[in-house]
Amino acid sequence: VPLPFQVGVPALEAFPFEIWNRILHRYLKKPSRELLFYGDPGGYMPLRRALASYLTVARAVRCTPEQIIVVSGAQQALDIAARLLLDPGDQAWIEEPGYAGAYWAIVAAGARPVPINVDQDGLNVQQGIARSPRARMIYITPSHQFPLGTTMTLTRRLELLRWAHKSGAWVLEDDYDNEFHYASHPIASLQGLDQSGNVIYLGTFSKIMFASLRLGYMVVAPDLVDGFLRAKAVTDRHCHTIEQAALAEFIIEGHLGRHIRRMRTLYLHRSQVLINAVEKYLGGRVELLRPDAGMHTVAWLPLETDDRKISQLAAADGLQILPLTSFYQKTQQRSGLILGFAGYGDHEIREGIQKLARVLAKVKTQ
Amino acid sequence: VPLPFQVGVPALEAFPFEIWNRILHRYLKKPSRELLFYGDPGGYMPLRRALASYLTVARAVRCTPEQIIVVSGAQQALDIAARLLLDPGDQAWIEEPGYAGAYWAIVAAGARPVPINVDQDGLNVQQGIARSPRARMIYITPSHQFPLGTTMTLTRRLELLRWAHKSGAWVLEDDYDNEFHYASHPIASLQGLDQSGNVIYLGTFSKIMFASLRLGYMVVAPDLVDGFLRAKAVTDRHCHTIEQAALAEFIIEGHLGRHIRRMRTLYLHRSQVLINAVEKYLGGRVELLRPDAGMHTVAWLPLETDDRKISQLAAADGLQILPLTSFYQKTQQRSGLILGFAGYGDHEIREGIQKLARVLAKVKTQ
Repeated sequence: VPLPFQVGVPALEAFPFEIWNRILHRYLKKPSRELLFYGDPGGYMPLRRALASYLTVARAVRCTPEQIIVVSGAQQALDIAARLLLDPGDQAWIEEPGYAGAYWAIVAAGARPVPINVDQDGLNVQQGIARSPRARMIYITPSHQFPLGTTMTLTRRLELLRWAHKSGAWVLEDDYDNEFHYASHPIASLQGLDQSGNVIYLGTFSKIMFASLRLGYMVVAPDLVDGFLRAKAVTDRHCHTIEQAALAEFIIEGHLGRHIRRMRTLYLHRSQVLINAVEKYLGGRVELLRPDAGMHTVAWLPLETDDRKISQLAAADGLQILPLTSFYQKTQQRSGLILGFAGYGDHEIREGIQKLARVLAKVKTQ
Repeated sequence: VPLPFQVGVPALEAFPFEIWNRILHRYLKKPSRELLFYGDPGGYMPLRRALASYLTVARAVRCTPEQIIVVSGAQQALDIAARLLLDPGDQAWIEEPGYAGAYWAIVAAGARPVPINVDQDGLNVQQGIARSPRARMIYITPSHQFPLGTTMTLTRRLELLRWAHKSGAWVLEDDYDNEFHYASHPIASLQGLDQSGNVIYLGTFSKIMFASLRLGYMVVAPDLVDGFLRAKAVTDRHCHTIEQAALAEFIIEGHLGRHIRRMRTLYLHRSQVLINAVEKYLGGRVELLRPDAGMHTVAWLPLETDDRKISQLAAADGLQILPLTSFYQKTQQRSGLILGFAGYGDHEIREGIQKLARVLAKVKTQ
């Protein structure tokens, strides 16, 4: 069970289960043989069509429905892409700090992840080229870097795409929480900026629906479609169909869009509750990054503070706070705490920050 | 959409969707955070417990709930097992004729499938030892060979287990339709007979529920559990949870058992409708194997008959009949047609066989 301030938890209590149930029930009442037997490895076509429309408008992704492959979450997209596009011994850039799921998918394919630092402009492309010039793949979260929250600048984006085009490396763009932005419109996707077909775009329903639904998608260039469909078929044939059908209708009828808009307002509110609570109870002890997007933020700790120790002590007090250093593979670790705020009510947030204040006080005096 | 006599199609119209919906709806009405957030890579524990009880009683499988890993269908179990247990270049026995999904999972792991013949006693173990003595894995459907319907004899089973134990090869036992037997009780699982922990047991809900649900399971030896859980986590984290929770209740409350018992009666009836229709309309032109288990059977054709041609012509007439030769990788092909009967009503079966009679008449005269 997720506890404050576990990352990646949306406001599950605010999801319109009544509507979702009604739609699902309609599909399950007297389902056709088509919906019950094996389906297309790429996914249920009405869902792929709905996604293509959405991604074109909202993320400037360029694709047809046929280029979309429905997967059981972004992790499966990472796994399939790594297996298909990397050979044993190949190098692949990962973000430092970054998402461990990408690291493990690359390792499982027999390839070698090379951590490349992220700074205030996003992934340091020049460092990547210097450290790992023959990399075959780059895993990246350009809209909202995980876990630091940085947005990659346009200069860096063009730099990355130029290099990927020249070297023939694949770019896996993980757009995991692009739907939630509070200050301004999000920057368009890398995929839409790319001319070469090197970018594979990944999205998930874990944040805008719920994680246990296990549905996500990838968008691949037309000449990769056949290979990815075969890989998906060998991996597990296809994703559960009835939920895909219900999801297509949920999107088409505007329910998902409405839910996302409501969550944007709610998450902005919760981020402010967090900011206020941190100011009130932790004033001066951490430096909180004010989130302008996403569902979590970073509270920086003074250099040399043992964030893992704080995480352990907080766990004993009913909090799930990931230490920033656990997101690094090796270099230039900075100490901090990753605080998810989207999934917790005002009271939970305030109480959690008070508990954290007591933990920090203990660590200080030890 | 599946048409007669597509294999693997259960009587979808007879599934108790009303009960299934009621249970699912209860879980979706006000789901807990636990059911909505990321779950255990091994699956939802109440489902694993229900499966362990069922498999112990019904299939003489020896396992604890912790040894069960819920997967999104048998294909994912094959894929994970092949990736984890085979190195590139390793050999693995497959049944000849046999299931193409196993062939492709082995190929995708970089290993080499070696086809070993099936005769009236099941897989020819001596031929396997002679052809591929260093194989690291055996894929097998001992209860009801796919597609021939043979049950492996006890002598052959013990022969296989002895050799696997001595050589350290893994046995993947795919028990895909063991629930349906008409003449006698099914023979117990290989897994239950094995003393060495070399057997990995696979089962699926695609036949006893519906394929688009995408749920199945594997049972692995205690010392393999950790590796398989990590592989499942890297592959796609875990399976969709709410459906697993509903399924656990569906099993525990006895609904699945009742459905299986009703289907046993229905499928026996349908197999007799098929037998009668074949006698009436195809008398003498094919030799039908009388099915005493499962959801399909074989209609043998005279030697040298082009079963692929018949399949093509039948497709033009609205039938989906797989030619037996398409299940062979290379050796000793016998000509025949695989006829699924479980998923089709009396009228559909009779009409389909009449259509097939017209097709066979055409091929004769060409």
